Amino acid sequence: SGRLPIAAAVIHPVVLLSIVDHHNRACKNTKKRAVGILLGTVSARGQVDVYNSYAVPFEEDERNPQVFFFDHDYVEHMAAMFRKVTARERIIGWYSTGPKIRPADPDIDDIVRGFCASGRSLYLICKVEPTELGLPTETYVSVSDESSVLGVSSGVRRRVFEHVPCSIGALEAEEVGTEHLLRDVKDAAAVTTLAADVSAK
Amino acid sequence: SGRLPIAAAVIHPVVLLSIVDHHNRACKNTKKRAVGILLGTVSARGQVDVYNSYAVPFEEDERNPQVFFFDHDYVEHMAAMFRKVTARERIIGWYSTGPKIRPADPDIDDIVRGFCASGRSLYLICKVEPTELGLPTETYVSVSDESSVLGVSSGVRRRVFEHVPCSIGALEAEEVGTEHLLRDVKDAAAVTTLAADVSAK
Repeated sequence: SGRLPIAAAVIHPVVLLSIVDHHNRACKNTKKRAVGILLGTVSARGQVDVYNSYAVPFEEDERNPQVFFFDHDYVEHMAAMFRKVTARERIIGWYSTGPKIRPADPDIDDIVRGFCASGRSLYLICKVEPTELGLPTETYVSVSDESSVLGVSSGVRRRVFEHVPCSIGALEAEEVGTEHLLRDVKDAAAVTTLAADVSAK
Repeated sequence: SGRLPIAAAVIHPVVLLSIVDHHNRACKNTKKRAVGILLGTVSARGQVDVYNSYAVPFEEDERNPQVFFFDHDYVEHMAAMFRKVTARERIIGWYSTGPKIRPADPDIDDIVRGFCASGRSLYLICKVEPTELGLPTETYVSVSDESSVLGVSSGVRRRVFEHVPCSIGALEAEEVGTEHLLRDVKDAAAVTTLAADVSAK
């Protein structure tokens, strides 16, 4: 299309935790999914770095999956608020807790793409309840149907989602604090699981 | 004071990561500190659960530590935006990357306390560059000087900060996703550190 392609996505750890948290707060024990905006940068070589995110008010009709409410004004307003703290980070895509691509997603992607300076939007699906080993995240870029060969077709839609390689952002070596925190968090998680295991017996 | 006391604080993992991230984005290689708002709930027994946070535009004068800019409107506006996604969470305090209590902090605490329904504000200091083992976080509640016995006096100020016990939020056993993510994140951190160690030799 002549536009800057997205070649790969690097997701910063805090983004994944925020998405899981958003889902647990807003969607736990429901059939709903959590939807929000990804903030970050796009390099000249097409690498998207996702540094931050925010939840967006979202509703969709269970019986008619094309009917949804996605708050445009909220998206724009929040992006402006975040820019006051970190000017460098822009809207570069969106996330959903899927767990799969849904019928409304090409339409949501259209909206988000309108906010992306590169004209391409990264779509991150984060599965909050993984059933297999490995990273429970998938990233996609929507492309015009005719330019797609390996794309996942969403049926009658004019755009399809193509897979983009995705990894968890490597932490810089000097970010000792983060590693320190992660160790503590990990320990806390292990202790809690153990406690749950014990009390279940 | 008759107001609801804060007996203990439980910090959700994503909050700690967000604070470290905020510092790394906005303050790295400077003498600045990152300042932001804590969102969560206060139980009837005085336990504060900190589930979420957001960065706030903040500047302070290095030569005159009483002079600072803390954006009130931003604080209020963001809180209203977050409530649209999670109605239950309210402003319950603030954070700074310290690494210590600073002269402006009683004034900032006054401002934040005005936003807290309980009339008490939790102050979390998260040290992003820990120098000793253990959790690099401290939590405080400011109290009137006369009611303080063990409080850390900030000198001429009328309010002093008292220590409050603090722990990392226990993850619910069913939050498999979070543990999964943390393991992956931990692995990524370990790999990066190893790479840095090797390249430093």
